[in-house]
Amino acid sequence: MSEIATRARHRCFGGSLSFHTHRSGETGTDMRFGVFTPPQADRGPVPALFYLAGLECNEETFLIKAGAIRLAAELGLMLVAPDTSPRGAAIPGEEDDWDLGTGAGFYVDATAAPWNKAYRMYSYVSRELPALIEANFPALGDRRGIFGHSMGGHGALVVALRQPERWQSVSAFAPISNPVAVPWGLKAFSSYLGPDSSPSLWAAYDASLLMAQRRHPGPILVDQGLADKFLETQLLPETLEAAAKAGGQDLTLRRHEGYDHSYWFIQSFVADHLRWHARALA
Amino acid sequence: MSEIATRARHRCFGGSLSFHTHRSGETGTDMRFGVFTPPQADRGPVPALFYLAGLECNEETFLIKAGAIRLAAELGLMLVAPDTSPRGAAIPGEEDDWDLGTGAGFYVDATAAPWNKAYRMYSYVSRELPALIEANFPALGDRRGIFGHSMGGHGALVVALRQPERWQSVSAFAPISNPVAVPWGLKAFSSYLGPDSSPSLWAAYDASLLMAQRRHPGPILVDQGLADKFLETQLLPETLEAAAKAGGQDLTLRRHEGYDHSYWFIQSFVADHLRWHARALA
Repeated sequence: MSEIATRARHRCFGGSLSFHTHRSGETGTDMRFGVFTPPQADRGPVPALFYLAGLECNEETFLIKAGAIRLAAELGLMLVAPDTSPRGAAIPGEEDDWDLGTGAGFYVDATAAPWNKAYRMYSYVSRELPALIEANFPALGDRRGIFGHSMGGHGALVVALRQPERWQSVSAFAPISNPVAVPWGLKAFSSYLGPDSSPSLWAAYDASLLMAQRRHPGPILVDQGLADKFLETQLLPETLEAAAKAGGQDLTLRRHEGYDHSYWFIQSFVADHLRWHARALA
Repeated sequence: MSEIATRARHRCFGGSLSFHTHRSGETGTDMRFGVFTPPQADRGPVPALFYLAGLECNEETFLIKAGAIRLAAELGLMLVAPDTSPRGAAIPGEEDDWDLGTGAGFYVDATAAPWNKAYRMYSYVSRELPALIEANFPALGDRRGIFGHSMGGHGALVVALRQPERWQSVSAFAPISNPVAVPWGLKAFSSYLGPDSSPSLWAAYDASLLMAQRRHPGPILVDQGLADKFLETQLLPETLEAAAKAGGQDLTLRRHEGYDHSYWFIQSFVADHLRWHARALA
């Protein structure tokens, strides 16, 4: 288990908000994450809710912009926010595009060179980071929730569908619901996974395709703004909805008139997500 | 009245969050501000609560970091967040220091050259901007509140103490309570107001000195973190407390163990401030 360095710590809502760095075995780089530890953790371990952020975001974005800490402190939820990719992996071109490489890990384990030497965000967020958190913070090991936004909504759905025994609750804001069929996903998957889009490789990271084969035992909550400029080209919630219906997945997809893709949308509905997870993780 | 350009608009908590630019007559520059218009404004004008930010901040800081919008939407308060200084005023040295010039207007009307040609933030936030808001947004003209943080807490206290008839409520987070006696204030005031610290000039912008001469008719709420690294050198809440006691000002000064100078502190207590203002502005 790697050592954790603490970069900053702040008292917040009676709990503790802290930012850390550690050497990741999965990525081979220093990885950053933020944690809110609620006041209830003074009396013993609490459920942990992991948030996966979207393109260009980092470990601070959600904690700063979502306004989620107040309710996490009330409900006794730990919040864990990883970064969205390795940084400084010394891969040629990793800084060239905003939707590939740095800030755009897409929560997959890359199989294609040169990305496969560091871009192992699926294993990082779904295995390495939870183990690190549970060993070093007062988090319950059998009460984990996961949610995210956009690229991170895709990541949360994929992680929970593939590891339902490890993640008791899952939700998403404006997820990339069918990445194999949209420009963001095609670009990322063909780079990270290679151009061979055989179902065994690409489909394992596509929430809509996964739902054709498996269900999460819990209900899934998805919120989507109808003024989201990426709705029709990159997100495709209707595909997820159809897959859920076909596969018998309990999915609540809420469409919100006038809301866009920003954290102003996320903060408007984040309380519903925290309550949703708190109920499932109680 | 200058034209207002809208740079961005987002739906948020059933209301509207928007960012604007206008040409200011006071500063002679383009000035930026953000506004949250709550859903209650669909049915008629609402009270407006102005927030003055601290050093290095801008019109986005509070709206992004304070987590205040949820409760403003619930209470029916408009939030107005101006920038902290003119920008691009073409004054030599305005970009050189983080605590003077750009991002550091200190909410005074500069009298000393070269700052006096643009740095008129006292008149801007206390007169020009409220008039602009009330002419262009559904804000009540006789229900105004003001609060702020650090440099902005100083600004809010000074504005409300000098114009009690115009500001029905006032509060502050970690205000610079006695700027004439601390390094930040001495540097700013000697630059903006000139080295002559005669009471008539400098004292008009010092909340503790103002309280020796006048009271705000309403109660004042101040929150202060005890782990704030600027507490003893720059903020001096005990001076404000003593001035309030001597002058008969109703002041509630709350000291919070473990909290620092950040927005993690502000967001922990912002709900109390919004409720405080909502009561006074009802």
